[in-house]
Amino acid sequence: MADQFSYQTLYKFTVNTFLSIGCSEKDAAIAAEALLSADLRGIDSHGIARLIGYVRLWEVGRVNATPNIQVVHETPSTAVVDGDAGLGVVVAPFAMQVAINKARQCGTGWVSVRNSNHFGIAGYHAMKALKEDMIGIAMTNASALVAPTFSTERMLGTNPIAVAIPAGEQPPFVADFATTTAANGKLEILQRKEEDTPTGWVQDASGNESTDANILKKGGSLLPLGSDREHSSHKGYALGSIVDIFSAVLSGANYGPWVPPFPAYVPMPENMPGTGIGHFFGAMRIDAFRTSAEFKEHMDNWITRFRNAKPSEGNEKVLIPGDPEREYENERMEQGIPIYPSVIIELKELADKLKIERIQD
Amino acid sequence: MADQFSYQTLYKFTVNTFLSIGCSEKDAAIAAEALLSADLRGIDSHGIARLIGYVRLWEVGRVNATPNIQVVHETPSTAVVDGDAGLGVVVAPFAMQVAINKARQCGTGWVSVRNSNHFGIAGYHAMKALKEDMIGIAMTNASALVAPTFSTERMLGTNPIAVAIPAGEQPPFVADFATTTAANGKLEILQRKEEDTPTGWVQDASGNESTDANILKKGGSLLPLGSDREHSSHKGYALGSIVDIFSAVLSGANYGPWVPPFPAYVPMPENMPGTGIGHFFGAMRIDAFRTSAEFKEHMDNWITRFRNAKPSEGNEKVLIPGDPEREYENERMEQGIPIYPSVIIELKELADKLKIERIQD
Repeated sequence: MADQFSYQTLYKFTVNTFLSIGCSEKDAAIAAEALLSADLRGIDSHGIARLIGYVRLWEVGRVNATPNIQVVHETPSTAVVDGDAGLGVVVAPFAMQVAINKARQCGTGWVSVRNSNHFGIAGYHAMKALKEDMIGIAMTNASALVAPTFSTERMLGTNPIAVAIPAGEQPPFVADFATTTAANGKLEILQRKEEDTPTGWVQDASGNESTDANILKKGGSLLPLGSDREHSSHKGYALGSIVDIFSAVLSGANYGPWVPPFPAYVPMPENMPGTGIGHFFGAMRIDAFRTSAEFKEHMDNWITRFRNAKPSEGNEKVLIPGDPEREYENERMEQGIPIYPSVIIELKELADKLKIERIQD
Repeated sequence: MADQFSYQTLYKFTVNTFLSIGCSEKDAAIAAEALLSADLRGIDSHGIARLIGYVRLWEVGRVNATPNIQVVHETPSTAVVDGDAGLGVVVAPFAMQVAINKARQCGTGWVSVRNSNHFGIAGYHAMKALKEDMIGIAMTNASALVAPTFSTERMLGTNPIAVAIPAGEQPPFVADFATTTAANGKLEILQRKEEDTPTGWVQDASGNESTDANILKKGGSLLPLGSDREHSSHKGYALGSIVDIFSAVLSGANYGPWVPPFPAYVPMPENMPGTGIGHFFGAMRIDAFRTSAEFKEHMDNWITRFRNAKPSEGNEKVLIPGDPEREYENERMEQGIPIYPSVIIELKELADKLKIERIQD
């Protein structure tokens, strides 16, 4: 069983970690908030459990703790940002802010980012648009674990897409999903439980059906959303490809099988065509289309109607994208965030190595 | 077996049909080209087979053959277009052109459309951006046939998304897909063959698994991309919802279960919250991000690398989105377009009713 820690405890620890690798106080705070949003929202694989991975990337010189993040090209509604190898959880908030500023000026803003690193959860960045009365969009590529339809070769990351849409009385619509049938974090949970996956999540190295949660260590791949051709895996493959192209071919980051691997011990691919990993952000001002009041009234109507759609047998209600994560966030902010024992051990070792205070359990 | 007709023969017939319901020569040509792009690209369900449905909508007063299509709200990078109940195959090209013009001015253009009708295939509209050295995006909502995850109620259309991305030496990347596991056209093919569907395409009226290709006539639903919760149908549901909101809640069209049904004999929903159906278009100028030459060089590299990904057993090669449709287009432009006998009979009846020349078989 996992121990519970308060958000404040984890926040302080995460800030101290980022400070100790040389981040500024401002950047450490930005990075900690972005990273821990994953733990708050129930996406445990992308939160504090990744902190040690971030530090390892810094140790091998792949993360720059004091980046000079810059807009290197722009038009009134677009920009390319070079992250200068900074933490993705620092680069992404900068880039999303550029998108928001452009949307203020000319209705929408679209920013493609190169030379970055893992940015935490896409949903966090997309949601930054909500308080500005904008729709927020965030996506990122990631190291290749996914085989295209008809292939056995890992060519794409789990390449998530997030879209956050403000409402009025209702909570916002927040979709945030990997473009695969199952995210890698789902496999990690099954590995810990020593359970098999359902069919349709992974394939083995030869492209055969597999239910082995450890198959990625044996040359297997995650499958695109849709699982197989008969169930339209070519659509998941197309979605993951669009994320890859918008994030990296537009910006000059690495794409496809050349995206730098997250584990610092994995050697970098050869002949890399760009710098770092890539992200893509969008912000659309609601009142660039219709008045905010009208839009929100109709979003409330949309949400209410869908929430009241007739549930199928055995299901209590229809969910709106973002409902489960919001429930997690409310619960965990109040009752604490569960951290797995293996992660706690790693965080203690990390604290000792960096000579910072351990988290209190 | 289907008879083959030349593109020119079908084009002339389609133009004559649109002229005879009162379209201008310019609009008839625009509409015919958009509609027949579906037949050329192998999406038979969305081409000339729908022409009679368009005429029926005109007969009941739901299609305006001489619409005053207008931009009703705009910013430098956005617009809302009111289609004045015009044919979607006339309204959509207008709106896509607005997006392209805005992209020329400020990098990107984004247009949400209300008060429109069925627009043919999304890919055709997205591809309009290619010759401008832009990425094109097109989506539309449609009458409700799809149940959200955990529901038995039809709340969404098959709500397709198309993204067209230019390359250099390589043909462009063109993804165009319904946000369901199977598009309705796939069911129609099985109905004609009197065959069952694979599991995971549809459910019955109670939400149980079904393989009945006629289940939509019995209260069943199409399933979102992903098929079931275990295979992430909530992602397909989210995608279809995003299309619905961008197309209709942003513009003031009808959304969700209120989208007007395509068959003219189906009564309109009660308490409709908007006008007509909605679309959403985007255009992003490549050189708003990096030089066109650099981008195309990397797109060619992306495409070549993916095309050469290791195929799994029994598969010859990995496809790039747009490959199958382009092959159809080349073949059918040369050898003719197959039309099913039942469609030929309908088109003859249509010709006689409208007093235009029958297509020659």
